[in-house]
Amino acid sequence: MELSSKLLERAVDEMSQLPGIGKRTALRLVLHLLRQPKSQTYRLTEALTTIKDQIKFCNTCFNISDAEICNICNNVHRNDKMICVVEDMRDVMAIESTSSYRGLYHVLGGKISPMDGIGPNDLNIEALVLRIRESQIEELIFALSPTMEGDTTNFYIFKQIQDLGIKASTIARGIAVGNELEYADEVTLGRSIVNRIPFEISLKS
Amino acid sequence: MELSSKLLERAVDEMSQLPGIGKRTALRLVLHLLRQPKSQTYRLTEALTTIKDQIKFCNTCFNISDAEICNICNNVHRNDKMICVVEDMRDVMAIESTSSYRGLYHVLGGKISPMDGIGPNDLNIEALVLRIRESQIEELIFALSPTMEGDTTNFYIFKQIQDLGIKASTIARGIAVGNELEYADEVTLGRSIVNRIPFEISLKS
Repeated sequence: MELSSKLLERAVDEMSQLPGIGKRTALRLVLHLLRQPKSQTYRLTEALTTIKDQIKFCNTCFNISDAEICNICNNVHRNDKMICVVEDMRDVMAIESTSSYRGLYHVLGGKISPMDGIGPNDLNIEALVLRIRESQIEELIFALSPTMEGDTTNFYIFKQIQDLGIKASTIARGIAVGNELEYADEVTLGRSIVNRIPFEISLKS
Repeated sequence: MELSSKLLERAVDEMSQLPGIGKRTALRLVLHLLRQPKSQTYRLTEALTTIKDQIKFCNTCFNISDAEICNICNNVHRNDKMICVVEDMRDVMAIESTSSYRGLYHVLGGKISPMDGIGPNDLNIEALVLRIRESQIEELIFALSPTMEGDTTNFYIFKQIQDLGIKASTIARGIAVGNELEYADEVTLGRSIVNRIPFEISLKS
Protein backbone atom coordinates (compact mmCIF):
# COMPACT_ATOMS: atom_id res chain seq x y z
CA MET A 1 0.00 0.00 0.00
CA GLU A 2 1.66 3.21 -1.16
CA LEU A 3 0.61 6.38 0.60
CA SER A 4 0.91 9.96 -0.62
CA SER A 5 2.57 11.24 2.58
CA LYS A 6 5.49 10.03 4.69
CA LEU A 7 3.89 11.37 7.86
CA LEU A 8 0.75 9.41 7.12
CA GLU A 9 2.78 6.32 6.29
CA ARG A 10 4.53 6.48 9.66
CA ALA A 11 1.27 6.91 11.59
CA VAL A 12 -0.29 3.99 9.70
CA ASP A 13 2.79 1.83 10.26
CA GLU A 14 2.75 2.44 14.01
CA MET A 15 -1.00 1.92 14.27
CA SER A 16 -0.77 -1.37 12.39
CA GLN A 17 1.70 -2.70 15.01
CA LEU A 18 -1.34 -3.24 17.23
CA PRO A 19 -2.72 -6.79 17.20
CA GLY A 20 -5.59 -7.37 14.78
CA ILE A 21 -5.08 -3.97 13.09
CA GLY A 22 -3.96 -4.37 9.47
CA LYS A 23 -2.67 -1.58 7.24
CA ARG A 24 -6.11 -0.87 5.82
CA THR A 25 -7.78 -0.60 9.21
CA ALA A 26 -4.87 1.50 10.48
CA LEU A 27 -5.35 3.91 7.57
CA ARG A 28 -9.08 4.14 8.33
CA LEU A 29 -8.35 4.93 12.00
CA VAL A 30 -5.70 7.56 11.21
CA LEU A 31 -7.90 9.25 8.58
CA HIS A 32 -10.70 9.30 11.14
CA LEU A 33 -8.47 11.05 13.68
CA LEU A 34 -7.43 13.56 11.01
CA ARG A 35 -11.08 14.49 10.48
CA GLN A 36 -11.76 14.96 14.20
CA PRO A 37 -10.72 17.98 16.33
CA LYS A 38 -7.08 17.96 17.46
CA SER A 39 -8.21 17.52 21.06
CA GLN A 40 -9.31 13.94 20.36
CA THR A 41 -5.86 12.89 19.18
CA TYR A 42 -4.24 14.66 22.14
CA ARG A 43 -6.56 12.98 24.65
CA LEU A 44 -5.85 9.56 23.11
CA THR A 45 -2.06 9.96 23.00
CA GLU A 46 -2.00 11.52 26.45
CA ALA A 47 -4.06 8.68 27.96
CA LEU A 48 -1.80 6.06 26.36
CA THR A 49 1.43 7.76 27.45
CA THR A 50 0.11 8.30 30.97
CA ILE A 51 -0.95 4.71 31.54
CA LYS A 52 2.33 3.43 30.09
CA ASP A 53 4.31 5.70 32.43
CA GLN A 54 2.21 5.34 35.56
CA ILE A 55 0.76 1.85 35.32
CA LYS A 56 0.69 0.09 38.71
CA PHE A 57 0.00 -3.47 39.68
CA CYS A 58 -1.48 -4.89 42.88
CA ASN A 59 1.42 -5.92 45.13
CA THR A 60 -0.30 -9.19 45.95
CA CYS A 61 -2.03 -10.49 42.82
CA PHE A 62 -0.40 -8.33 40.08
CA ASN A 63 -3.71 -7.28 38.58
CA ILE A 64 -3.64 -3.72 37.20
CA SER A 65 -4.66 -1.43 40.04
CA ASP A 66 -4.29 2.24 40.98
CA ALA A 67 -3.84 1.24 44.64
CA GLU A 68 -1.03 -0.82 46.21
CA ILE A 69 -3.50 -3.58 46.97
CA CYS A 70 -6.40 -4.12 44.55
CA ASN A 71 -10.10 -4.16 45.44
CA ILE A 72 -10.34 -7.93 45.20
CA CYS A 73 -7.34 -8.66 47.44
CA ASN A 74 -8.61 -6.02 49.87
CA ASN A 75 -12.12 -7.45 50.10
CA VAL A 76 -12.50 -9.22 53.46
CA HIS A 77 -15.60 -11.06 52.23
CA ARG A 78 -13.59 -13.05 49.72
CA ASN A 79 -12.16 -16.47 50.43
CA ASP A 80 -8.41 -15.94 50.93
CA LYS A 81 -7.73 -19.67 51.02
CA MET A 82 -8.12 -20.01 47.26
CA ILE A 83 -6.05 -18.54 44.45
CA CYS A 84 -7.07 -18.71 40.82
CA VAL A 85 -4.09 -18.41 38.45
CA VAL A 86 -4.86 -16.46 35.25
CA GLU A 87 -2.95 -15.00 32.34
CA ASP A 88 -4.13 -11.39 32.38
CA MET A 89 -6.75 -9.05 33.80
CA ARG A 90 -9.25 -9.88 31.05
CA ASP A 91 -9.47 -13.38 32.53
CA VAL A 92 -10.12 -11.90 35.97
CA MET A 93 -12.94 -9.84 34.46
CA ALA A 94 -14.38 -12.85 32.64
CA ILE A 95 -14.40 -15.01 35.79
CA GLU A 96 -15.74 -12.16 37.95
CA SER A 97 -18.63 -11.69 35.53
CA THR A 98 -19.75 -15.30 36.17
CA SER A 99 -20.22 -14.55 39.92
CA SER A 100 -19.19 -18.19 40.47
CA TYR A 101 -15.88 -17.59 42.24
CA ARG A 102 -15.29 -15.81 45.54
CA GLY A 103 -11.58 -16.52 46.06
CA LEU A 104 -8.52 -14.46 45.11
CA TYR A 105 -6.50 -14.29 41.89
CA HIS A 106 -2.91 -14.30 40.74
CA VAL A 107 -2.21 -12.63 37.40
CA LEU A 108 0.83 -14.15 35.68
CA GLY A 109 1.08 -11.54 32.93
CA GLY A 110 1.33 -14.15 30.16
CA LYS A 111 2.10 -17.80 29.50
CA ILE A 112 5.44 -19.56 29.14
CA SER A 113 6.07 -19.45 25.41
CA PRO A 114 9.62 -20.14 24.15
CA MET A 115 8.46 -19.26 20.61
CA ASP A 116 7.73 -15.70 21.74
CA GLY A 117 10.77 -15.58 24.01
CA ILE A 118 8.68 -15.64 27.20
CA GLY A 119 10.24 -17.74 29.98
CA PRO A 120 9.15 -18.36 33.59
CA ASN A 121 11.18 -15.38 34.81
CA ASP A 122 9.17 -13.01 32.63
CA LEU A 123 6.01 -13.97 34.52
CA ASN A 124 4.89 -13.43 38.14
CA ILE A 125 5.55 -17.08 39.04
CA GLU A 126 8.19 -16.63 41.74
CA ALA A 127 5.90 -14.21 43.55
CA LEU A 128 3.09 -16.76 43.35
CA VAL A 129 5.18 -19.51 44.94
CA LEU A 130 6.31 -17.11 47.67
CA ARG A 131 2.71 -16.03 48.22
CA ILE A 132 1.61 -19.65 48.65
CA ARG A 133 4.45 -20.39 51.05
CA GLU A 134 3.76 -17.34 53.21
CA SER A 135 -0.01 -17.53 53.51
CA GLN A 136 -2.68 -20.09 54.38
CA ILE A 137 -3.65 -21.03 50.85
CA GLU A 138 -5.54 -24.31 50.61
CA GLU A 139 -6.32 -24.55 46.90
CA LEU A 140 -4.75 -23.33 43.68
CA ILE A 141 -6.98 -23.27 40.59
CA PHE A 142 -5.30 -23.09 37.20
CA ALA A 143 -7.42 -21.08 34.75
CA LEU A 144 -5.05 -20.61 31.82
CA SER A 145 -6.20 -21.26 28.26
CA PRO A 146 -6.12 -25.00 27.42
CA THR A 147 -3.30 -24.59 24.90
CA MET A 148 0.20 -26.04 24.79
CA GLU A 149 1.58 -22.86 26.40
CA GLY A 150 -1.12 -22.86 29.05
CA ASP A 151 -0.50 -26.51 29.93
CA THR A 152 3.27 -25.94 30.05
CA THR A 153 2.83 -23.01 32.43
CA ASN A 154 0.43 -24.97 34.65
CA PHE A 155 2.90 -27.85 34.84
CA TYR A 156 5.88 -25.59 35.59
CA ILE A 157 4.03 -23.99 38.51
CA PHE A 158 2.63 -27.31 39.74
CA LYS A 159 6.13 -28.80 40.02
CA GLN A 160 7.18 -26.00 42.35
CA ILE A 161 4.21 -26.26 44.67
CA GLN A 162 3.44 -29.97 44.66
CA ASP A 163 5.35 -30.56 47.91
CA LEU A 164 3.56 -27.77 49.79
CA GLY A 165 0.51 -29.95 50.47
CA ILE A 166 -2.09 -27.71 48.86
CA LYS A 167 -4.83 -28.84 46.55
CA ALA A 168 -4.31 -28.03 42.87
CA SER A 169 -7.03 -28.10 40.24
CA THR A 170 -7.73 -26.81 36.74
CA ILE A 171 -10.99 -25.37 35.47
CA ALA A 172 -13.10 -28.06 33.78
CA ARG A 173 -12.48 -28.64 30.10
CA GLY A 174 -15.28 -30.09 28.07
CA ILE A 175 -18.17 -29.35 25.78
CA ALA A 176 -19.38 -25.76 26.13
CA VAL A 177 -22.90 -25.44 27.52
CA GLY A 178 -25.33 -25.04 24.61
CA ASN A 179 -22.92 -26.32 21.96
CA GLU A 180 -23.82 -29.07 19.51
CA LEU A 181 -21.78 -32.23 20.16
CA GLU A 182 -21.07 -32.88 16.49
CA TYR A 183 -19.18 -29.59 16.14
CA ALA A 184 -16.90 -30.19 19.13
CA ASP A 185 -13.26 -30.95 18.28
CA GLU A 186 -12.06 -34.51 18.84
CA VAL A 187 -9.59 -33.77 21.63
CA THR A 188 -12.16 -31.90 23.70
CA LEU A 189 -14.84 -34.52 23.10
CA GLY A 190 -12.43 -37.37 23.87
CA ARG A 191 -11.30 -35.78 27.13
CA SER A 192 -14.85 -34.95 28.11
CA ILE A 193 -15.67 -38.68 27.98
CA VAL A 194 -12.57 -39.76 29.88
CA ASN A 195 -13.13 -37.05 32.51
CA ARG A 196 -16.90 -37.54 32.74
CA ILE A 197 -18.59 -36.31 35.91
CA PRO A 198 -21.30 -37.90 38.08
CA PHE A 199 -24.73 -37.06 36.66
CA GLU A 200 -25.97 -35.52 39.93
CA ILE A 201 -23.10 -32.98 39.84
CA SER A 202 -23.89 -31.93 36.27
CA LEU A 203 -27.43 -31.03 37.36
CA LYS A 204 -26.12 -28.43 39.79
CA SER A 205 -24.43 -26.17 37.28
CA MET B 1 -17.31 -3.10 31.75
CA GLU B 2 -15.78 -2.16 35.09
CA LEU B 3 -12.02 -1.85 35.17
CA SER B 4 -9.69 -2.06 38.15
CA SER B 5 -7.83 1.15 37.32
CA LYS B 6 -8.95 4.68 36.41
CA LEU B 7 -5.87 5.18 34.23
CA LEU B 8 -6.71 2.04 32.30
CA GLU B 9 -10.34 3.07 32.04
CA ARG B 10 -9.37 6.42 30.51
CA ALA B 11 -7.02 4.82 27.97
CA VAL B 12 -9.71 2.28 27.00
CA ASP B 13 -12.34 5.02 26.75
CA GLU B 14 -10.19 7.10 24.43
CA MET B 15 -9.19 4.11 22.30
CA SER B 16 -12.81 3.05 21.92
CA GLN B 17 -13.64 6.45 20.40
CA LEU B 18 -12.05 5.14 17.20
CA PRO B 19 -14.52 3.76 14.64
CA GLY B 20 -15.04 0.00 14.80
CA ILE B 21 -13.14 -0.30 18.10
CA GLY B 22 -15.43 -1.41 20.93
CA LYS B 23 -14.54 -1.42 24.62
CA ARG B 24 -13.35 -5.01 24.53
CA THR B 25 -11.06 -4.49 21.56
CA ALA B 26 -9.81 -1.24 23.08
CA LEU B 27 -8.90 -3.11 26.28
CA ARG B 28 -7.07 -5.76 24.26
CA LEU B 29 -5.08 -3.08 22.42
CA VAL B 30 -4.18 -1.15 25.58
CA LEU B 31 -3.15 -4.32 27.44
CA HIS B 32 -1.00 -5.23 24.43
CA LEU B 33 0.77 -1.86 24.58
CA LEU B 34 1.32 -2.31 28.33
CA ARG B 35 3.15 -5.59 27.64
CA GLN B 36 5.39 -4.04 24.96
CA PRO B 37 8.44 -1.82 25.58
CA LYS B 38 7.64 1.82 26.33
CA SER B 39 9.24 2.85 23.05
CA GLN B 40 6.36 1.33 21.07
CA THR B 41 3.75 3.47 22.83
CA TYR B 42 5.95 6.57 22.42
CA ARG B 43 6.45 5.92 18.70
CA LEU B 44 2.70 5.47 18.20
CA THR B 45 1.65 8.56 20.14
CA GLU B 46 4.42 10.64 18.58
CA ALA B 47 3.44 9.59 15.05
CA LEU B 48 -0.23 10.41 15.71
CA THR B 49 0.53 13.80 17.27
CA THR B 50 2.97 14.70 14.49
CA ILE B 51 0.59 13.92 11.66
CA LYS B 52 -2.25 15.74 13.41
CA ASP B 53 -0.04 18.83 13.87
CA GLN B 54 1.75 18.81 10.53
CA ILE B 55 -0.75 17.26 8.14
CA LYS B 56 -0.75 18.98 4.74
CA PHE B 57 -3.08 18.74 1.80
CA CYS B 58 -2.39 19.22 -1.89
CA ASN B 59 -3.31 22.82 -2.77
CA THR B 60 -5.08 21.66 -5.90
CA CYS B 61 -6.89 18.40 -5.16
CA PHE B 62 -6.82 18.32 -1.32
CA ASN B 63 -5.40 14.81 -1.16
CA ILE B 64 -3.05 14.33 1.81
CA SER B 65 0.45 15.22 0.60
CA ASP B 66 3.77 16.28 2.11
CA ALA B 67 4.32 18.65 -0.84
CA GLU B 68 2.28 21.73 -1.81
CA ILE B 69 1.16 19.95 -4.96
CA CYS B 70 0.71 16.17 -4.84
CA ASN B 71 2.36 13.62 -7.13
CA ILE B 72 -0.80 13.05 -9.12
CA CYS B 73 -1.51 16.74 -9.78
CA ASN B 74 2.17 17.23 -10.60
CA ASN B 75 2.31 14.38 -13.11
CA VAL B 76 2.42 15.84 -16.65
CA HIS B 77 1.46 12.49 -18.14
CA ARG B 78 -1.98 12.60 -16.57
CA ASN B 79 -5.04 13.97 -18.32
CA ASP B 80 -5.72 17.37 -16.72
CA LYS B 81 -9.02 17.75 -18.54
CA MET B 82 -10.76 15.27 -16.24
CA ILE B 83 -11.47 15.50 -12.51
CA CYS B 84 -12.79 12.58 -10.50
CA VAL B 85 -14.61 13.73 -7.32
CA VAL B 86 -14.06 11.40 -4.33
CA GLU B 87 -14.77 11.41 -0.63
CA ASP B 88 -11.32 10.70 0.81
CA MET B 89 -7.83 9.50 -0.07
CA ARG B 90 -8.82 5.84 0.30
CA ASP B 91 -11.02 6.26 -2.75
CA VAL B 92 -8.09 7.77 -4.67
CA MET B 93 -6.01 4.72 -3.72
CA ALA B 94 -8.79 2.31 -4.72
CA ILE B 95 -9.25 3.94 -8.14
CA GLU B 96 -5.49 4.25 -8.70
CA SER B 97 -5.09 0.53 -8.03
CA THR B 98 -7.41 -0.26 -10.95
CA SER B 99 -5.04 1.52 -13.40
CA SER B 100 -8.21 2.45 -15.34
CA TYR B 101 -8.13 6.20 -14.80
CA ARG B 102 -5.47 8.68 -15.88
CA GLY B 103 -7.15 11.98 -15.00
CA LEU B 104 -6.92 14.08 -11.82
CA TYR B 105 -8.87 13.94 -8.57
CA HIS B 106 -10.64 16.25 -6.17
CA VAL B 107 -10.91 15.04 -2.58
CA LEU B 108 -13.99 16.48 -0.84
CA GLY B 109 -13.08 15.28 2.65
CA GLY B 110 -16.50 13.77 3.30
CA LYS B 111 -20.08 13.79 2.09
CA ILE B 112 -22.90 16.22 2.85
CA SER B 113 -24.62 14.64 5.85
CA PRO B 114 -26.99 16.79 7.92
CA MET B 115 -27.32 13.87 10.40
CA ASP B 116 -23.61 14.18 11.23
CA GLY B 117 -23.65 17.96 11.02
CA ILE B 118 -21.60 18.05 7.81
CA GLY B 119 -22.72 20.76 5.43
CA PRO B 120 -21.34 21.88 2.02
CA ASN B 121 -19.05 24.42 3.70
CA ASP B 122 -17.27 21.69 5.65
CA LEU B 123 -16.16 20.10 2.38
CA ASN B 124 -13.79 21.24 -0.38
CA ILE B 125 -16.67 22.06 -2.73
CA GLU B 126 -16.09 25.79 -3.21
CA ALA B 127 -12.48 25.08 -4.19
CA LEU B 128 -13.71 22.50 -6.71
CA VAL B 129 -16.07 24.95 -8.41
CA LEU B 130 -13.29 27.56 -8.52
CA ARG B 131 -10.89 24.98 -9.91
CA ILE B 132 -13.33 24.10 -12.69
CA ARG B 133 -13.93 27.76 -13.54
CA GLU B 134 -10.25 28.59 -13.69
CA SER B 135 -8.91 25.64 -15.66
CA GLN B 136 -9.73 23.79 -18.88
CA ILE B 137 -11.70 20.92 -17.32
CA GLU B 138 -13.86 19.03 -19.83
CA GLU B 139 -15.36 16.29 -17.67
CA LEU B 140 -16.25 15.83 -14.03
CA ILE B 141 -16.73 12.25 -12.80
CA PHE B 142 -18.62 11.73 -9.54
CA ALA B 143 -17.24 8.73 -7.65
CA LEU B 144 -18.92 9.04 -4.26
CA SER B 145 -20.57 6.05 -2.62
CA PRO B 146 -24.06 5.41 -4.04
CA THR B 147 -25.80 6.32 -0.79
CA MET B 148 -28.29 9.04 0.04
CA GLU B 149 -25.43 11.29 1.28
CA GLY B 150 -23.36 10.56 -1.82
CA ASP B 151 -26.25 11.35 -4.15
CA THR B 152 -27.07 14.55 -2.26
CA THR B 153 -23.46 15.71 -2.53
CA ASN B 154 -23.30 14.89 -6.24
CA PHE B 155 -26.48 16.85 -6.85
CA TYR B 156 -25.33 19.84 -4.82
CA ILE B 157 -22.11 20.07 -6.83
CA PHE B 158 -23.86 19.41 -10.13
CA LYS B 159 -26.23 22.36 -9.60
CA GLN B 160 -23.26 24.71 -9.24
CA ILE B 161 -21.45 23.58 -12.37
CA GLN B 162 -24.28 22.72 -14.74
CA ASP B 163 -24.07 26.09 -16.50
CA LEU B 164 -20.32 25.86 -17.10
CA GLY B 165 -20.76 23.61 -20.12
CA ILE B 166 -18.65 20.68 -18.92
CA LYS B 167 -19.59 17.04 -19.13
CA ALA B 168 -20.66 15.45 -15.84
CA SER B 169 -20.87 11.70 -15.23
CA THR B 170 -21.05 9.24 -12.36
CA ILE B 171 -19.24 5.93 -12.12
CA ALA B 172 -21.43 3.07 -13.34
CA ARG B 173 -23.70 1.46 -10.79
CA GLY B 174 -24.78 -2.09 -11.42
CA ILE B 175 -24.12 -5.73 -10.67
CA ALA B 176 -20.54 -6.28 -9.45
CA VAL B 177 -18.43 -8.38 -11.83
CA GLY B 178 -18.47 -11.98 -10.62
CA ASN B 179 -21.52 -11.60 -8.38
CA GLU B 180 -24.54 -13.88 -8.58
CA LEU B 181 -27.62 -12.04 -9.86
CA GLU B 182 -29.95 -13.57 -7.30
CA TYR B 183 -28.03 -11.99 -4.42
CA ALA B 184 -28.08 -8.46 -5.85
CA ASP B 185 -30.37 -6.00 -4.06
CA GLU B 186 -33.52 -4.94 -5.90
CA VAL B 187 -32.60 -1.28 -6.35
CA THR B 188 -29.24 -2.11 -7.94
CA LEU B 189 -30.74 -4.81 -10.14
CA GLY B 190 -33.63 -2.56 -11.18
CA ARG B 191 -31.31 0.31 -12.12
CA SER B 192 -28.96 -2.05 -13.94
CA ILE B 193 -31.83 -3.02 -16.25
CA VAL B 194 -33.02 0.55 -16.80
CA ASN B 195 -29.45 1.72 -17.44
CA ARG B 196 -28.44 -1.28 -19.55
CA ILE B 197 -25.47 -0.80 -21.88
CA PRO B 198 -24.92 -1.92 -25.49
CA PHE B 199 -23.60 -5.47 -25.54
CA GLU B 200 -20.50 -4.56 -27.54
CA ILE B 201 -19.44 -2.10 -24.84
CA SER B 202 -19.80 -4.70 -22.08
CA LEU B 203 -17.33 -6.93 -23.93
CA LYS B 204 -14.59 -4.32 -23.62
CA SER B 205 -14.40 -4.18 -19.83
